[in-house]
Amino acid sequence: MTKVDVTTMIRAKMREKTITWAAIAEAAGLSEVFVTSACLGMNSLLPDAAGKVVDFLDLPAEAAVVLSEYPTKDFPRTVPTDPCIYRWYEITGVFGEAFKELVQEKFGDGIMSAIDFDMEVNRVAHEKGDRVQVVMSGKFLPYKSW
Amino acid sequence: MTKVDVTTMIRAKMREKTITWAAIAEAAGLSEVFVTSACLGMNSLLPDAAGKVVDFLDLPAEAAVVLSEYPTKDFPRTVPTDPCIYRWYEITGVFGEAFKELVQEKFGDGIMSAIDFDMEVNRVAHEKGDRVQVVMSGKFLPYKSW
Amino acid sequence: MTKVDVTTMIRAKMREKTITWAAIAEAAGLSEVFVTSACLGMNSLLPDAAGKVVDFLDLPAEAAVVLSEYPTKDFPRTVPTDPCIYRWYEITGVFGEAFKELVQEKFGDGIMSAIDFDMEVNRVAHEKGDRVQVVMSGKFLPYKSW
Amino acid sequence: MTKVDVTTMIRAKMREKTITWAAIAEAAGLSEVFVTSACLGMNSLLPDAAGKVVDFLDLPAEAAVVLSEYPTKDFPRTVPTDPCIYRWYEITGVFGEAFKELVQEKFGDGIMSAIDFDMEVNRVAHEKGDRVQVVMSGKFLPYKSW
Amino acid sequence: MTKVDVTTMIRAKMREKTITWAAIAEAAGLSEVFVTSACLGMNSLLPDAAGKVVDFLDLPAEAAVVLSEYPTKDFPRTVPTDPCIYRWYEITGVFGEAFKELVQEKFGDGIMSAIDFDMEVNRVAHEKGDRVQVVMSGKFLPYKSW
Amino acid sequence: MTKVDVTTMIRAKMREKTITWAAIAEAAGLSEVFVTSACLGMNSLLPDAAGKVVDFLDLPAEAAVVLSEYPTKDFPRTVPTDPCIYRWYEITGVFGEAFKELVQEKFGDGIMSAIDFDMEVNRVAHEKGDRVQVVMSGKFLPYKSW
Amino acid sequence: MTKVDVTTMIRAKMREKTITWAAIAEAAGLSEVFVTSACLGMNSLLPDAAGKVVDFLDLPAEAAVVLSEYPTKDFPRTVPTDPCIYRWYEITGVFGEAFKELVQEKFGDGIMSAIDFDMEVNRVAHEKGDRVQVVMSGKFLPYKSW
Amino acid sequence: MTKVDVTTMIRAKMREKTITWAAIAEAAGLSEVFVTSACLGMNSLLPDAAGKVVDFLDLPAEAAVVLSEYPTKDFPRTVPTDPCIYRWYEITGVFGEAFKELVQEKFGDGIMSAIDFDMEVNRVAHEKGDRVQVVMSGKFLPYKSW
Amino acid sequence: MTKVDVTTMIRAKMREKTITWAAIAEAAGLSEVFVTSACLGMNSLLPDAAGKVVDFLDLPAEAAVVLSEYPTKDFPRTVPTDPCIYRWYEITGVFGEAFKELVQEKFGDGIMSAIDFDMEVNRVAHEKGDRVQVVMSGKFLPYKSW
Amino acid sequence: MTKVDVTTMIRAKMREKTITWAAIAEAAGLSEVFVTSACLGMNSLLPDAAGKVVDFLDLPAEAAVVLSEYPTKDFPRTVPTDPCIYRWYEITGVFGEAFKELVQEKFGDGIMSAIDFDMEVNRVAHEKGDRVQVVMSGKFLPYKSW
Repeated sequence: MTKVDVTTMIRAKMREKTITWAAIAEAAGLSEVFVTSACLGMNSLLPDAAGKVVDFLDLPAEAAVVLSEYPTKDFPRTVPTDPCIYRWYEITGVFGEAFKELVQEKFGDGIMSAIDFDMEVNRVAHEKGDRVQVVMSGKFLPYKSW
Repeated sequence: MTKVDVTTMIRAKMREKTITWAAIAEAAGLSEVFVTSACLGMNSLLPDAAGKVVDFLDLPAEAAVVLSEYPTKDFPRTVPTDPCIYRWYEITGVFGEAFKELVQEKFGDGIMSAIDFDMEVNRVAHEKGDRVQVVMSGKFLPYKSW
Repeated sequence: MTKVDVTTMIRAKMREKTITWAAIAEAAGLSEVFVTSACLGMNSLLPDAAGKVVDFLDLPAEAAVVLSEYPTKDFPRTVPTDPCIYRWYEITGVFGEAFKELVQEKFGDGIMSAIDFDMEVNRVAHEKGDRVQVVMSGKFLPYKSW
Repeated sequence: MTKVDVTTMIRAKMREKTITWAAIAEAAGLSEVFVTSACLGMNSLLPDAAGKVVDFLDLPAEAAVVLSEYPTKDFPRTVPTDPCIYRWYEITGVFGEAFKELVQEKFGDGIMSAIDFDMEVNRVAHEKGDRVQVVMSGKFLPYKSW
Repeated sequence: MTKVDVTTMIRAKMREKTITWAAIAEAAGLSEVFVTSACLGMNSLLPDAAGKVVDFLDLPAEAAVVLSEYPTKDFPRTVPTDPCIYRWYEITGVFGEAFKELVQEKFGDGIMSAIDFDMEVNRVAHEKGDRVQVVMSGKFLPYKSW
Repeated sequence: MTKVDVTTMIRAKMREKTITWAAIAEAAGLSEVFVTSACLGMNSLLPDAAGKVVDFLDLPAEAAVVLSEYPTKDFPRTVPTDPCIYRWYEITGVFGEAFKELVQEKFGDGIMSAIDFDMEVNRVAHEKGDRVQVVMSGKFLPYKSW
Repeated sequence: MTKVDVTTMIRAKMREKTITWAAIAEAAGLSEVFVTSACLGMNSLLPDAAGKVVDFLDLPAEAAVVLSEYPTKDFPRTVPTDPCIYRWYEITGVFGEAFKELVQEKFGDGIMSAIDFDMEVNRVAHEKGDRVQVVMSGKFLPYKSW
Repeated sequence: MTKVDVTTMIRAKMREKTITWAAIAEAAGLSEVFVTSACLGMNSLLPDAAGKVVDFLDLPAEAAVVLSEYPTKDFPRTVPTDPCIYRWYEITGVFGEAFKELVQEKFGDGIMSAIDFDMEVNRVAHEKGDRVQVVMSGKFLPYKSW
Repeated sequence: MTKVDVTTMIRAKMREKTITWAAIAEAAGLSEVFVTSACLGMNSLLPDAAGKVVDFLDLPAEAAVVLSEYPTKDFPRTVPTDPCIYRWYEITGVFGEAFKELVQEKFGDGIMSAIDFDMEVNRVAHEKGDRVQVVMSGKFLPYKSW
Repeated sequence: MTKVDVTTMIRAKMREKTITWAAIAEAAGLSEVFVTSACLGMNSLLPDAAGKVVDFLDLPAEAAVVLSEYPTKDFPRTVPTDPCIYRWYEITGVFGEAFKELVQEKFGDGIMSAIDFDMEVNRVAHEKGDRVQVVMSGKFLPYKSW
């Protein structure tokens, strides 16, 4: 049983019982973004959280072992094609340098960690049309001299 | 005089007078991210804001015209190399699918606009090391049938 | 059952009963371009329209569920090879900059949406040989300052 | 004097005298899209039209010769980055196969010519926001047996 | 049954009965290059010709339907590796610009059509070693103003 | 003085005096395709032919030395963009395998040489529009066992 | 039965009976490099040699037919990864221009054929560690004028 | 003064005085391949040999310093285009696996060094046309366990 | 049975019996890095060590043969995506030139061998968070003149 | 004055006065690897260390400002060509997965930081030829749940 198998089982249960990612995340006791990414095979759940997901969705016990294994994060190299994901790639291209300038101005030479990192996706009501809000937070990691 | 020329002039003034992006943004009366990206040639300023930037930095008047021209957003294709920008590309790869799932769950079939879009970069104090916080917001654009 | 499976079933029915895309679109009560793209797995149909397509083609009920799911729009990166599609890519290359100049001149800094978008393909009689006419329309999205 | 030189001279005149592409096209007696693409170096003008453009913009006579020379159409390979042009590339990816299906259904096996081709870009008023309309027309070219 | 299946069946018959492409082309009443490319899945045969090929090779009737369907011409992007095909790619690289110059000199601004096109491959005896002769002919398509 | 310099000088003379490639080839006593490719820097002329070209165009003597030097044939890797050259690349993709099949059927295992090679480009009158005819001939080179 | 199948059978026999490429080449009466490349599917054996290989390895008769068919030489494009093969690619990069200079100096404008070609790989004893010796020989092919 | 400058000076002297690479190599007291590659900037000469080359060609003394500096070996990534160099790349693709098999059979698991390496290029007379002979020798480097 | 099969069997045993790479390496009597890479199919074990691994994990005897066969080292070309491996690629990009400068300064013109090479990975305790320590050692290989 | 300018000045001083990277690092009071990378423009020096380097090499004062600015780390994408740097890329490919396995086994799910990172390059005497030793150390960064 692989992470791909478990993702397929989770999606099947979601369709069959009309379960949302929000509900799975609540069952796991963790955030939506993290749990969704783990269920898609891009992060590992701790055994306790994996067990809760498996119980909630009524999956075989082995699925909890697989969910807690450490993944190889393999994503398409170069440019994504789905418009929803591409727009984020475009934002990286258009605002990447400005982001770097401001991080350096506010913190010094270094980066925002993508490992000690969290993210949430919210729906924000707006009179001209609701908006997708993304809040990301990563620890600042300074370059060091040695 | 091109946008590249104006960026070079702005950087020279910033070094010479130890001016920050935050100060330039305040002079323009707009956000840090947007003003920085415009000064780097990736967005256009309205003539009024362009004039304020040019006055604040004591640049030649033609620079305001150039800052208000519509740019061609040309960024390196495929994978960025600077670690500060690369980490964002990596986040797109690792969390892109989870982001798409949650947007669809919360809004229906569609995308977060990268055009009707805003972003801020903040420093958030944290006992284990301060964190870079990014808040992005884009209008939800639904796919339509026709 | 995946979107690929449903596309295969649709094509089989089309061959068996000599059904056209035009007829399927008429059954769905929507345009030819949109319905064809949805049947090829690149867009989602609303449940009502999906049901009409499935009824018209006498497909299993599950096919309607699949047709209404939100697709991941995955297309070959870089350059298409089929001449019919390549020519459009070539038009993008040859006329892309002129298109951008004219959009900016007529609307200001911004883009034509590819999401709030519609398209039709027509046959136009012409004495020197009939012509393929494509009419595309997308909402203008202005870049905003913030 | 090269086509790049002439494009630079044209842009300088446009800024200096606030001339539009629409006005240049009118002076040439040809469409906006074609004249703009020729002024950007991606098409050749017949000597008569080239002369009118040069007269209208008060350029040196050699510029008319250059505008009427046959260009090498060199555009960036793979994926464009500017959002305004990228969206068209995305449309090719998302709707390319549907376009091919409908051309074949309406005409038989063959393609829409990108050479015996014309295009216009219009602003269409709309209550929910004005729309960019593109109308393209290319001669159908059937594959032949031999 | 797909075009790949039919190609496999044709090759099997050719091996089993030692049949040549020349013989298949003669049975179809068409040229060797065109019939071979259609049997390899890169062109469509008209139903009559498809029927003759299927009869000659004693294939199932459905094969004639498949041979007459319109193909998607999918070939490896970038550089071919087989030396026999690579040499042609090399010729495109070495002589492509000279070809363009001479077409423009003899016809004006435009291209040789690859759609209204025919080709033959001949063996020409030569005392220093026989030669492969290729004769290609494509309709000249002029760029037009509009 | 480099081959690029000489090409620039030749083009300048051609414009100034309205000289054709056909005339230059006749002066050299060689074919149009070969002389054009040599003048574009993709082949070397023997000193005698180089001298005739230089005399005919009234170029400095050093140009003859440069025209007779052995070039490095450097052409854009992957996919050409100019439509006139792209079509040839497309022909390689669509008909490359059929070409290989027929060469092997007529000659055995081997290739058409791109070195012991010649080519001509002709205008052939045709009632439905004149055609570009290309005749290529290359020595067959058999793979050998050893 | 394909060339890949035959390679698999040959490797199985080699493991089972501890047979070397040298022994297979001796059975075929040809060189090690050529026979090995043919057994790996990158060259064709004449029927007589193919029969000897099949007899020696006790393979089914059809394997001899497959070994004598003309292969499509398909190898990974761009850069090989296995260090043993990569080093040769590196030699091409580091010494390729020097090789070209010396071929031209010794022969005139032209190339070393990769078709009328042979190669051997030898072990040469050396006190500081034995050396791999490669001897390649290809017919010089001069570029011709026409 | 860079390695590129020195290469340019060497080529100028070679043209002016009709000097061959063979003569320069003899002056350096080293092989043709190595000296040519060093003069093209892909290897370093020991100071003594560099001095001899500079004396022989009557170059400024600084050129000897530059010739003895350690180069960065920068060559075009992916596929070379000049036919003379491409053929070697093709040989790597066609015979690379066979080469690896034979090195392993004769030596065990390991590679031919491209660093402890030498090569020569010879002209070998042959009745059917003279041949380019390349002899390469590299130390065998075994993979080790640890 | 292939190297991929054996890796799958090893991983299954590790999960089933909670065995570590450290334990397998100890059983083999070799280092962790080397044994792990061999079990993942990127190096060969000598028959004795392969036997010990197979005995320790209770695998079929054929697995030892497979573990001792010479692998083809096939890894993804260009840029790795998993963050743990990407960081090493980034280190190569950021520090590669500095590494080359220091190797040349300490040793002369040459390289660190990746064949006569060993590596270890250690956990080093640190008050601000434990550190991953990597120690690599490769024989210096000088470029030679010849 | 840019980082590239400063690197050029440093190299000129090193040649002129025969200064080593080791001496510059000693003057800066920091390690060889870090100081070399900063002098090559891939890291920033703190103002104090930058001043010491500038004093030691007798460079203009502005060079110290430039050395302390935060760089954009721009390195060639995909595969490096210089053998000394390529070998490290190859090590990443061959041992990358084993490295990941061992980091995960010793620490849990996470990565070795390339930011909180140090490295040294040593010459280690060895009877069979001296060895290049590289010691890298990076903080372990665990993936977190949230």
